[in-house]
Amino acid sequence: MAETDTNSSIILHNAVIVTMDPQSRVFRNGGIFIQHDTIKAIGQSSDILRDFSSLAHQIIDLHAQILLPGFINTHVHTSQQLARGIADDVHLMTWLHGRIWPYESNMTEEDSYISTLLCGIELIHSGVTCFAEAGGQHVSGMAKAVELLGLRACLVQSTMDSGEGLPALWANRTTDDCIQSQKELYKKHHNTADGRIRVWFGIRQIMNSTDRLLLETRDATRELKTGIHMHVAEIPYENQLVMDTQKVDHGTVTYLEKIGFLQNNLLSAHTVWVNSTEIGFLSSTGVKVSHCPASAMRMLGFAPIREMLDAGICVSLGTDGAPSNNRMSIVDEMYLASLINKGREVHRIGTTDPTALPAETVLRMATINGAKSVLWDNEIGSLEVGKKADLVVVNPSLWPMVPVHDCISSLVYCMRTENVVSVMCNGHWIMKDKKILRVNEEDVILEAGGAASDLLKRAGIIIPSRMKIL
Amino acid sequence: MAETDTNSSIILHNAVIVTMDPQSRVFRNGGIFIQHDTIKAIGQSSDILRDFSSLAHQIIDLHAQILLPGFINTHVHTSQQLARGIADDVHLMTWLHGRIWPYESNMTEEDSYISTLLCGIELIHSGVTCFAEAGGQHVSGMAKAVELLGLRACLVQSTMDSGEGLPALWANRTTDDCIQSQKELYKKHHNTADGRIRVWFGIRQIMNSTDRLLLETRDATRELKTGIHMHVAEIPYENQLVMDTQKVDHGTVTYLEKIGFLQNNLLSAHTVWVNSTEIGFLSSTGVKVSHCPASAMRMLGFAPIREMLDAGICVSLGTDGAPSNNRMSIVDEMYLASLINKGREVHRIGTTDPTALPAETVLRMATINGAKSVLWDNEIGSLEVGKKADLVVVNPSLWPMVPVHDCISSLVYCMRTENVVSVMCNGHWIMKDKKILRVNEEDVILEAGGAASDLLKRAGIIIPSRMKIL
Repeated sequence: MAETDTNSSIILHNAVIVTMDPQSRVFRNGGIFIQHDTIKAIGQSSDILRDFSSLAHQIIDLHAQILLPGFINTHVHTSQQLARGIADDVHLMTWLHGRIWPYESNMTEEDSYISTLLCGIELIHSGVTCFAEAGGQHVSGMAKAVELLGLRACLVQSTMDSGEGLPALWANRTTDDCIQSQKELYKKHHNTADGRIRVWFGIRQIMNSTDRLLLETRDATRELKTGIHMHVAEIPYENQLVMDTQKVDHGTVTYLEKIGFLQNNLLSAHTVWVNSTEIGFLSSTGVKVSHCPASAMRMLGFAPIREMLDAGICVSLGTDGAPSNNRMSIVDEMYLASLINKGREVHRIGTTDPTALPAETVLRMATINGAKSVLWDNEIGSLEVGKKADLVVVNPSLWPMVPVHDCISSLVYCMRTENVVSVMCNGHWIMKDKKILRVNEEDVILEAGGAASDLLKRAGIIIPSRMKIL
Repeated sequence: MAETDTNSSIILHNAVIVTMDPQSRVFRNGGIFIQHDTIKAIGQSSDILRDFSSLAHQIIDLHAQILLPGFINTHVHTSQQLARGIADDVHLMTWLHGRIWPYESNMTEEDSYISTLLCGIELIHSGVTCFAEAGGQHVSGMAKAVELLGLRACLVQSTMDSGEGLPALWANRTTDDCIQSQKELYKKHHNTADGRIRVWFGIRQIMNSTDRLLLETRDATRELKTGIHMHVAEIPYENQLVMDTQKVDHGTVTYLEKIGFLQNNLLSAHTVWVNSTEIGFLSSTGVKVSHCPASAMRMLGFAPIREMLDAGICVSLGTDGAPSNNRMSIVDEMYLASLINKGREVHRIGTTDPTALPAETVLRMATINGAKSVLWDNEIGSLEVGKKADLVVVNPSLWPMVPVHDCISSLVYCMRTENVVSVMCNGHWIMKDKKILRVNEEDVILEAGGAASDLLKRAGIIIPSRMKIL
């Protein structure tokens, strides 16, 4: 599609700029000069206006609004958006075998496309400019939606070559099928959409992976210089199964370390049930962790996030998918990450620790740590000269945030999606004044509703009623 | 102020009506007929239109939007709204002595008025029609704001007649001062604003109360037939202090039972650190509990909510105040209540329990249980003939909720304040199509910002910077 050229060089000024750079600089009245997709200068408004006004096609006064790097959602199942609400308040096995697998295995590429469009709209409304797909079946459908929406993403196919209870369609995939399919997707989509789309390799989880799949994935991604996205140590049962079958003294992480799978291109999602030795393994190998607070709270447990951060692990934030959380908002996950990790201390010290995971740490998780987690911090995650222009404009003068006594904590604890007014990715506005620019939001909502009903019928999923419907 | 008379009889039809009545009826295509402040009929749209169209001054087609009883926030410090963000990420003693007490003790009645207006705007945007004030100093300021906004409220003065570290202004209040002042406030404001305002008696917490204050409060409220709002069993230290000084074998609840303070007009806020014997005391005396998920998570701990519900205790939801939570939204608290209470099971059964506190239970907590908690369920908390017309219109066809496969869980887990479009209290719209009707939102926001800065200066509160401000 045609990109809007009016943005080809632009000054945004009179903004509170939270750079998230290594010095944690915040400009009280800052300006930024952007050419094409790149940040060319950042500093005091007066300096930027003086030095770059003559080069700018457009100069925008942000009237003291806040400018931030775009948020990065490091674990989101975009193909599950049409399944929001199909598996609430049910046990994990009903969730997986009765709802999610029938849903996913009945999806078409078109369903994935619509689902990713709908999810992308929610991501943009919550200030996300880049996400790491957690794994669905139809990468080409996702890629089409991401290209259209104007987002940045690391896409993966959900890959399984073994394990119990898989839907018929997936049950006879060989290891070679899995690796070959991903190499083809890489060839087709990697570095497309002006460089906004990257293709990673996916491992669903250890219970659905042979050792060969794990090790060939590791080797293929080394060769292709890309990342691996995998669900790790989600539930105690997973660890127990690994201990029983693989003869290791703790769970998944211990085993992955033993076979030499852990390396610094691994994005380890959830990672809830790990002990201190395993935290050491993750740290020393440079594995990144995606913490998904809502989903963990509901389905998995309390990940030792403070301990991971203390061990120097790069921890970022993810929403997980719509049937595990319902809200695909990094804005809400920031708030939750703080609450959950303060509360979790009760079980160590007998009271909560209101100082645990302070706002500035949480904001780093959603920005620069996100960029590191998706192996893209040379170009995104902070507002710095030479990086891509991925940014969010936040209006703090609305009822959810007023009064702002502490700008950073206000962004983490008070901000709601209402405050996210404009979003730029790769130098182009993708939302301006609350309006999604590259797709028609109402049309997508309408189409998604229809596609979701059809898919549930096809998959034979029936959701029991909770009240007396008349 | 003049009430709008065009609403004097109105039909709302073509709505999904979630009544929250004792039969848990949901009308797929429902209608409701309202005269003045009262629901006169509810049923299928076609029946309502047939029987009441000739009597209605106005007939509104809700186009398949969802109609619910107004939410009830049973613990909110409206006077703390101007203090949002002044005490994030600090220990409890800094929170109380360094920030909250200096703030509250420097407030004027005008500050309380502005703070309540600002808080009220947030409450209305999140679908609240009635709240229980948790306790501030200037009830007359609160009452003025509540009357203007069109909300319903149980107001209380925060009352303390003893204890360590109190600000000078409060330190020499006698028990008689406390009781007398509240009786005067009752006389002045109870049952004002067309019956929307009630005055309760407040006890800040046991560590600031003599036995005489407790017992005279109990007796005065019995006589006046009103309620008591008190913070109970918030932190382990409180229980320990009670055990040490009062020679009881557990904390606050055990002591309150011993002195005969527990009765069915007590709204016990937080109530985190209670054992099973104490849950029994609360249940047998008919005490109501306000569960404040975010605030508990951050500052207090995990209340045994499932056990309280199992014991038949009426548990409702509160937001607490802005310096304890930052978001004054019952919409968010519903989502959190479910997550926290599913997650809490880890410490009992080794995994989370995704079936704990299902959506229908949480929705009851925010509506009918809220009404019971504020002793007002004869008139509010459900949409039933004869009750007051306090209701919320939710638009589910927006990006936060689409697709809706399960209406009830979608309201609890997906709904955001974006979906709350209109709110009626006592038969009058107080928000219509996102516009607050009885005050000018922008003016209040502007005025609140100024008042908040001035107050912090006056109180000498300085908030350290988290980043490098340039």
